[in-house]
Amino acid sequence: MVSVKEIKEMFKPKLKPIIWDNNQNKLTVLDQSLLPFEKVFVELRTPEEVADAIRLMKVRGAPAIGITASYGMVLSVLKASSIDDALKLLHNAKQVMDKARPTAVNLSWATSHMLNRAKQYVESGEAKNVKELVELLKKDANKVFDDEMEAEIQMGLYGLEKLNSGDTVLTQCNAGGLATGTGLGTALAPVKIAHLLGMNVSVIAPETRPWLQGSRLTVYELMEEGIPVTLITDTAVGLVMFKKMVSSVMVGADRILSDGHVYNKIGTFKEAVIAHEMGIPFYVLAPVSTFDLKSSVNDVKIEERDPNEVRTVRGVPIAPENVKVFNPVFDVTPPKYITAIITEKGVIYPPFDKNVRKIVER
Amino acid sequence: MVSVKEIKEMFKPKLKPIIWDNNQNKLTVLDQSLLPFEKVFVELRTPEEVADAIRLMKVRGAPAIGITASYGMVLSVLKASSIDDALKLLHNAKQVMDKARPTAVNLSWATSHMLNRAKQYVESGEAKNVKELVELLKKDANKVFDDEMEAEIQMGLYGLEKLNSGDTVLTQCNAGGLATGTGLGTALAPVKIAHLLGMNVSVIAPETRPWLQGSRLTVYELMEEGIPVTLITDTAVGLVMFKKMVSSVMVGADRILSDGHVYNKIGTFKEAVIAHEMGIPFYVLAPVSTFDLKSSVNDVKIEERDPNEVRTVRGVPIAPENVKVFNPVFDVTPPKYITAIITEKGVIYPPFDKNVRKIVER
Repeated sequence: MVSVKEIKEMFKPKLKPIIWDNNQNKLTVLDQSLLPFEKVFVELRTPEEVADAIRLMKVRGAPAIGITASYGMVLSVLKASSIDDALKLLHNAKQVMDKARPTAVNLSWATSHMLNRAKQYVESGEAKNVKELVELLKKDANKVFDDEMEAEIQMGLYGLEKLNSGDTVLTQCNAGGLATGTGLGTALAPVKIAHLLGMNVSVIAPETRPWLQGSRLTVYELMEEGIPVTLITDTAVGLVMFKKMVSSVMVGADRILSDGHVYNKIGTFKEAVIAHEMGIPFYVLAPVSTFDLKSSVNDVKIEERDPNEVRTVRGVPIAPENVKVFNPVFDVTPPKYITAIITEKGVIYPPFDKNVRKIVER
Repeated sequence: MVSVKEIKEMFKPKLKPIIWDNNQNKLTVLDQSLLPFEKVFVELRTPEEVADAIRLMKVRGAPAIGITASYGMVLSVLKASSIDDALKLLHNAKQVMDKARPTAVNLSWATSHMLNRAKQYVESGEAKNVKELVELLKKDANKVFDDEMEAEIQMGLYGLEKLNSGDTVLTQCNAGGLATGTGLGTALAPVKIAHLLGMNVSVIAPETRPWLQGSRLTVYELMEEGIPVTLITDTAVGLVMFKKMVSSVMVGADRILSDGHVYNKIGTFKEAVIAHEMGIPFYVLAPVSTFDLKSSVNDVKIEERDPNEVRTVRGVPIAPENVKVFNPVFDVTPPKYITAIITEKGVIYPPFDKNVRKIVER
């Protein structure tokens, strides 16, 4: 059995959405808002530039935003005149960046985490000057990245056990290395690791309206890595399973409840129901940070977005401009339709109401 | 109980997709490929122009294609030099038009029907010259249209029995009056008649990628008639049923086998499976001409279309230009998921392998 460490050494993604140069203290990100039509890297020099990049969706995906903000905190102290000045700059950087996507939990988690670490270093005397503080915070930001990468590899290895050579995986949205910032991903991690190990695996990606993360991002990222991928419309999800063109379904998650209800990108539920009917395994891949053990299915409100996202595609109208629209961002998949939930701490099988806590609280 | 005749007199569609001028022998169709942004009518002068219009989706929908092809057969003989020439031209017209959409059973039905009628007229001596033949064939083509309208009203009245005031019907694609050419429709006939009779009914229309018949046509046609309609992405089909926002599903069909397998627009199958799981009735509305009692599910090839339909939306790229695509036009819904098939000859309930023939061959 191959280890997380071995995969970490082997995995050299062709597409690195976040690049940190540890010698030059330089942060470069791939502008995801232009994908797949233009591949443009931009350097982010200040927390303000990081905030702008997040606001403009140049950096997107919860884990990717967290990693980028961690490096944004490092950038804020590079030119500090003193330790006191550094702490002020970090406070300010957190404020500036947190405002960029107020609902992104990973964002405020990352900025709080980095600020708290800095305070500890100063209080404990570990950082006696700005230079020492910068070096310590760089290690922390790199650890945020490394922890994410290792969690994804671990999930990928658990998921790998569900794959055979020749398999085709149906996914939904983009739960890949663009969303997480590592180049690996959650739902796509098993396929990427399988490919890395020389297995013959391929992916079917539904376009995922209204935001088209499937056609714009998932397809692009897999093509960059040389993994065979086929794009379908969201309407074709049923037929590919009916025709047994799919060996298993692997999707990410935005929130998972203690009883196994999974909130994920709109369209996930239909894949789960059809997979269940067709006898195709349906796997959810997500880190334990995705679990919400407090809420029940009646507590969770499903966010609805701007109707114009449905009335248009990339700015082009596709419907009468005044048509009434229902535009939910997520749907909810009941536990009945889920074969297993794959986390970095292990694989959770039904009954989920009993087994989720066993793994998550391990 | 209101009669077919009464509804036929009451129903004045605001949108007429096929107009035949019986004095000038002029066929004009609404170019559906431009809807809902432009309302352009085009004249079709020859079977070749009819075939092009069908191929380019200016005319779409099984019954509308059948009606248009019937008039296309009339157009083919307008300039015949003799009865023999007319029969040759009809043979040729059938060949040309049949190729335009090989899966559309109404198309080859209509061309065969018109050709057979012509042969009969010639053999029986009813048509002694081209002029007489043209007049007889015009009557036949008009009868194809009238029969379609009456069949739809009858289907609509059978479907009306499945509706209550306050109901919301989920549909798929456009099985409305644009698809059938009459302005009424198959799947939308019950809703339109209910609205005509003052009942409070509404529709949820999925956009139906890749061609967006839902957002472009169904939404447009219902808004034109003043019937409340909500547009959703194809990804949201599951959630609206999960949330019980849907009272029943009503879809059309392109081909129905003797055992109840239904071929319809890609995306129909997923609605059927989810409706089945959620306990929501799933109705297929189609005239008996849609039935193919000879083929089995292994015989029917599902047409695939140009990958660029998936790579773009209205000419705008949404994916890497060289991505591999699977673009099936139809999917197949097994009888297990179908509550009833509503035809103009009556409502067919399971077991379909026994009951289809009883109604269709009645």
